[in-house]
Amino acid sequence: MNNAHIASAFDRDLERVQAMLMKMGGLVETAILDGAKSLEARDLELADSVRKGDRAIDALEEQVNAEATRVIALRAPTARDLRTVMTVIKISANLERCGDYAKNMAKRTTVLAETPPVGSASVSIRKMAREVQLMLKDALDAYVQRDAALAADVIQRDEDVDQLYNALFRELLTFMMEDPRNITPCMHLHFIAKNIERMGDHVTNMAEQVVYLVTGALPDESRQKQDVTAYVSEE
Amino acid sequence: MNNAHIASAFDRDLERVQAMLMKMGGLVETAILDGAKSLEARDLELADSVRKGDRAIDALEEQVNAEATRVIALRAPTARDLRTVMTVIKISANLERCGDYAKNMAKRTTVLAETPPVGSASVSIRKMAREVQLMLKDALDAYVQRDAALAADVIQRDEDVDQLYNALFRELLTFMMEDPRNITPCMHLHFIAKNIERMGDHVTNMAEQVVYLVTGALPDESRQKQDVTAYVSEE
Repeated sequence: MNNAHIASAFDRDLERVQAMLMKMGGLVETAILDGAKSLEARDLELADSVRKGDRAIDALEEQVNAEATRVIALRAPTARDLRTVMTVIKISANLERCGDYAKNMAKRTTVLAETPPVGSASVSIRKMAREVQLMLKDALDAYVQRDAALAADVIQRDEDVDQLYNALFRELLTFMMEDPRNITPCMHLHFIAKNIERMGDHVTNMAEQVVYLVTGALPDESRQKQDVTAYVSEE
Repeated sequence: MNNAHIASAFDRDLERVQAMLMKMGGLVETAILDGAKSLEARDLELADSVRKGDRAIDALEEQVNAEATRVIALRAPTARDLRTVMTVIKISANLERCGDYAKNMAKRTTVLAETPPVGSASVSIRKMAREVQLMLKDALDAYVQRDAALAADVIQRDEDVDQLYNALFRELLTFMMEDPRNITPCMHLHFIAKNIERMGDHVTNMAEQVVYLVTGALPDESRQKQDVTAYVSEE
């Protein structure tokens, strides 16, 4: 930009919106971990706090949207600056969905607390949740540092989450076949596992947005893999 | 806007982006109906075309995003105009998710075609899909006509979809308890039902965006209901 005043004004505005986004990310990371923890420990109080906590995440997304829109209207950013603001909006939308899934996990915890534990499913679920939370942390770091290689790494790690999910899916099927009393709890556990797997997809979306922001190219499904390798090999 | 040239230029640009959005909406409506149809008729060819068709939907979302961003950069719209472009971006994101769910439904159809049919589940699923497709049609009409009352009606109708889902969920549980051989197909049928229920949530999001665009207020979960009634009573 030619006008240094406008440039710095935009940067200040962007920093404020990004701070909101990072706060939102922190809340979602906690919600994912606490949701899984409440399930494993059958901690209804913790589950309840996760459910209530989603309101703050939703409120932050609305704030991010309103502020980002205001920045666009006020500063009329172009090129890279505009793309950055759009990326913030996309990332916050994905964070909001992850928050919803964590809330849903907590809801099901309250139902599952009344049923007998099924094998070590809640342990596997905690591992999945931990994996996704770390992916999320790195996706947000990749955004802040504009690090396409780290973002590409996050995209690759989503496969591990999918594998954890598939293994748990088969495990749950077996439990249900063994004893019909396992069916209802397994249905809920399966949903929780699927929701965590979906969180992984949303985190992958965020990472793809970062790749797009840094490289200017949003790879489609088929091209993703090789692009990913390309970025990783840059490390 | 003061400058009639800029105003009309913006309107032309917006119309072009909206045309893409409507094309995208049409493809998603078809994908939802064909996905459910392929399941009920065990039509693998149709299922395959739904799976392949999702690429076109994804491509349109990228186009809508790129064009909308270009319009913002080029025309620097403010106030209502900017909000409109932001709404188009949000709606296209929700449409893309619905497309993914339809694709997933088609994927599971290919798996389910190899298992014995379970009760009338696929009929209930087709009813749910039809309901959501009509909600989607109305949500897009509500956007085009800036009709908050119609959008509010769509938001209310999501409850019917949730009820259809809950009824099917209980039905599937019973089938699984009756015969373990039903467990695997029921798990897939359950997912399809849940995905359609989620499509309903995304269509509800679109309708909320329309309410926001027209009224300037995006009601939070707790206030939604009364706001909805408020708008509906305006009819």
